[in-house]
Amino acid sequence: MLIRLAYDIQFEIPATVAMVAMLNVHPSRVNDLLEPDELQTEPRLDVESYIDGFGNRCARFVAPKGHLRLSNSTLIRDSGQPDPFNWSAQEIPVGSMPHEILQFLLSSRYCEVDRFSNIAVELFGEVAPGWSRVQAVCNWVNNHVAFNYQQARPTKTALDVYTERVGVCRDFQHLAITFCRALNIPARYATGYLGDIGVPLRLPMDFSAWFEAYLDDRWWTFDARNNEPRIGRVLMATGRDASDVAVTTSFGQADLRYFFVVTEEETATSTDPEAYLSDGA
Amino acid sequence: MLIRLAYDIQFEIPATVAMVAMLNVHPSRVNDLLEPDELQTEPRLDVESYIDGFGNRCARFVAPKGHLRLSNSTLIRDSGQPDPFNWSAQEIPVGSMPHEILQFLLSSRYCEVDRFSNIAVELFGEVAPGWSRVQAVCNWVNNHVAFNYQQARPTKTALDVYTERVGVCRDFQHLAITFCRALNIPARYATGYLGDIGVPLRLPMDFSAWFEAYLDDRWWTFDARNNEPRIGRVLMATGRDASDVAVTTSFGQADLRYFFVVTEEETATSTDPEAYLSDGA
Amino acid sequence: MLIRLAYDIQFEIPATVAMVAMLNVHPSRVNDLLEPDELQTEPRLDVESYIDGFGNRCARFVAPKGHLRLSNSTLIRDSGQPDPFNWSAQEIPVGSMPHEILQFLLSSRYCEVDRFSNIAVELFGEVAPGWSRVQAVCNWVNNHVAFNYQQARPTKTALDVYTERVGVCRDFQHLAITFCRALNIPARYATGYLGDIGVPLRLPMDFSAWFEAYLDDRWWTFDARNNEPRIGRVLMATGRDASDVAVTTSFGQADLRYFFVVTEEETATSTDPEAYLSDGA
Amino acid sequence: MLIRLAYDIQFEIPATVAMVAMLNVHPSRVNDLLEPDELQTEPRLDVESYIDGFGNRCARFVAPKGHLRLSNSTLIRDSGQPDPFNWSAQEIPVGSMPHEILQFLLSSRYCEVDRFSNIAVELFGEVAPGWSRVQAVCNWVNNHVAFNYQQARPTKTALDVYTERVGVCRDFQHLAITFCRALNIPARYATGYLGDIGVPLRLPMDFSAWFEAYLDDRWWTFDARNNEPRIGRVLMATGRDASDVAVTTSFGQADLRYFFVVTEEETATSTDPEAYLSDGA
Repeated sequence: MLIRLAYDIQFEIPATVAMVAMLNVHPSRVNDLLEPDELQTEPRLDVESYIDGFGNRCARFVAPKGHLRLSNSTLIRDSGQPDPFNWSAQEIPVGSMPHEILQFLLSSRYCEVDRFSNIAVELFGEVAPGWSRVQAVCNWVNNHVAFNYQQARPTKTALDVYTERVGVCRDFQHLAITFCRALNIPARYATGYLGDIGVPLRLPMDFSAWFEAYLDDRWWTFDARNNEPRIGRVLMATGRDASDVAVTTSFGQADLRYFFVVTEEETATSTDPEAYLSDGA
Repeated sequence: MLIRLAYDIQFEIPATVAMVAMLNVHPSRVNDLLEPDELQTEPRLDVESYIDGFGNRCARFVAPKGHLRLSNSTLIRDSGQPDPFNWSAQEIPVGSMPHEILQFLLSSRYCEVDRFSNIAVELFGEVAPGWSRVQAVCNWVNNHVAFNYQQARPTKTALDVYTERVGVCRDFQHLAITFCRALNIPARYATGYLGDIGVPLRLPMDFSAWFEAYLDDRWWTFDARNNEPRIGRVLMATGRDASDVAVTTSFGQADLRYFFVVTEEETATSTDPEAYLSDGA
Repeated sequence: MLIRLAYDIQFEIPATVAMVAMLNVHPSRVNDLLEPDELQTEPRLDVESYIDGFGNRCARFVAPKGHLRLSNSTLIRDSGQPDPFNWSAQEIPVGSMPHEILQFLLSSRYCEVDRFSNIAVELFGEVAPGWSRVQAVCNWVNNHVAFNYQQARPTKTALDVYTERVGVCRDFQHLAITFCRALNIPARYATGYLGDIGVPLRLPMDFSAWFEAYLDDRWWTFDARNNEPRIGRVLMATGRDASDVAVTTSFGQADLRYFFVVTEEETATSTDPEAYLSDGA
Repeated sequence: MLIRLAYDIQFEIPATVAMVAMLNVHPSRVNDLLEPDELQTEPRLDVESYIDGFGNRCARFVAPKGHLRLSNSTLIRDSGQPDPFNWSAQEIPVGSMPHEILQFLLSSRYCEVDRFSNIAVELFGEVAPGWSRVQAVCNWVNNHVAFNYQQARPTKTALDVYTERVGVCRDFQHLAITFCRALNIPARYATGYLGDIGVPLRLPMDFSAWFEAYLDDRWWTFDARNNEPRIGRVLMATGRDASDVAVTTSFGQADLRYFFVVTEEETATSTDPEAYLSDGA
């Protein structure tokens, strides 16, 4: 399966500002790319690419006052298979985990593991450990939190989600991640493309957040928001939580003016992808 | 100057638990060590040493049910000079910072940068940038927060410190770090030994927390709690905040029973350091 | 001046639920009413009217499963004068305040006075006491908080407003009230009708929130959201904060489906007020 | 049974400050008093007594700079019976509650009912309504929260107690009250004397907090901290939460220097109660 990936994000910049974008496909998927995956900027800026401490490809640049457009279109080969799952995957005792995994058991900005240790055990302590426990976490979050675009805010933490019971995809994942960590299951936040391949059309194409849990000896994809195996996720970045992997981080003011994402299967009859990107207002 | 460093930390472990200790001297000071710096455990456990993503030396082990003692005594050579300072050190534009520094501008568990952006600018926006701005942050925190051992708690964040105005050393640093980051000055949390060399005796010898701010092209030591140059700091670890560099992290219950730290100048007339460590209750 | 007041609020009720409505004009304005001010319900319910501990007129009823409509239209005589002000009004020492005023110095759900004592003194401690200090509070809030209907949420407290700097009218008032109380100036939350009489049309007609501060020997109207004297406020209720004086409180689920408010000067050429209320979806 | 009640509370006052004390026995117990129940102050101050909006007797005064001592000793007749209980007491539908009870269903400073509505239903929704549900709330709080004098703080809310699982008596009650309100059971905070009559000596004599829940047509005493019927409670005040009924509230700085409370059965062999009060440091 081929998936067209594209974005067109536009800002009004009131004064020169440094920015970091995490808009590239994750290095783990580079070999699947069939077209270049380079951030295009208007105006043309000096963009420096680097790999951060989590292994994500980042692009940094300094945007001048004025209008800024970030865009690209690329094509990726995908297995077309739904997220793998493995009901027999086991939890690893903390003492046996690789060193670099341990950080994903700790508290982070939006995941107050220290405030959830009792709650998590009360809710999930009786569930059989392993895949079924992570799935139970996802089920709980999916059943108890309502999706509402109007109820997003940048300061919302797992504890806020747990009490307010409403949020967007990032909020679902933050709560699930926090439960997992409180149960000593390493969990990390993931961002990427997720379209509607294989499911009834639900929402405009967009970036999405999901999470990964560490079972057996690898990371597995979970998604407390959609809570079903999906086809066509394309990973962009992983980190402790949304604070580490914002699609764009600006170190100063940058006012979002336009936001458009494409992620859909490309077939012989697809419309020209450039069409999507031509004239954001 | 020679400084004797020692600790004796004892736990009661109700059930087998994995632990990570960050009790070693920081790799940057290894060449100053005059005696071995290895974690001793009672009972003798299989301790694995590794370097984490921040460059800290960590020790991990699995502690069995029962009494656990972590201890060591080592000797380090120190310049005997107070913390360096440099009033002409400049803030670096974010666009010019090394990649690996950027993470220290982001929010973390105890440092809600996203909630302080306006407050920080209101308080410090008019202060001349550079060393004097970081110093102004330290002065403000030092003047507005009271030290009180009874007012510590593991969930206290920078925002709690800002409203409650009381805490322990870690709380002072978390607030200062958050102000710095909100001003686009990279700041990281530091733990280590800090005794009373050159100052009137104040408190029992202990580990301490301070922070580092990135100015010019390096990290500089600041300490919003003591807020004066000190002699004899011995760094153990740096991270985003206390969540990353807890002296010990246990992934399950471990009840602290005894805690004793030595950090003092060793002279010909020093008492036998072993004496400090002989019989914690 | 005559002001037409009307509302049409509709809910879908999934199961029988007790409700309290604070939709009546405040008892202090009863003598100005030219038409009946009685809550109409569809279906017709047994509505009990009472005065709560703050002196507000409340209506309570039990709504059955199904569609519920609350409505009324009334006419009130108004001075047509802007909110009174008195630059010479003084703060009263706490020791001299009437007993019943003291409660408006305490913390309440959305006004964490205990967390603002230092912040308030730092921001307003140097301002001359009295009217000018309350005005300084209003100016600060008005200048530092942005209005945004999309950023409302029922759990938002004064501290959230102080850090997020965005909200709706209730949020502005909660922050101002909290500052006043922390300065030992009694302040209470007020709800009522506020239209656009005498100002350029800004928003759809709606209920609004403002606050009252106690200076000299009486309560005065302040409004940190609009921050200018306005014509045509019609008070409905006062309390410690929004928790006490919600327009409707349902003790169980009640899903809002339609909300429409009229408050405008009635003249010979006014359209028939019934027109406003005829056919909410 | 006769119970000796006394207190000796001393402050250092840095500057003239208005204070309110709620140290009197509640009006509902006035007929049981065998000795005067009047606040004594040193220096002798003009103390004004009044009844607040909740029906509590309050004393207010303005304390000058210097040392302040509040004290009294009185004697009260008590039934000697443990707290009444009634397993058949029923929850009242909100629609049938007296008006003045409704306020005890709302959120207040330390009781964020709005953040607990789902949690309370998840934990207690399946429990049979009535006395058994309130008892289930008390059992849960008593089993899941640890008592620790060192973990008190004035800003701790029910949500903090729920996540931190540690606190003092006020914290236990705040969480239980919040659960009850979220279940539509009116609950109010109570303060008073509670000694160790009929139980093994546990703690120094002190004031205590408990709570009352409204079942059938009256308020009943519950105590999530002790969670067993006790003999010799003497009520001082009730309110929404601790914010309403602090033993002393000072509208400015007042530093507590000494705190001593007597509440014990008076028998022929009791020591002279004055002895308790003679020379607080």
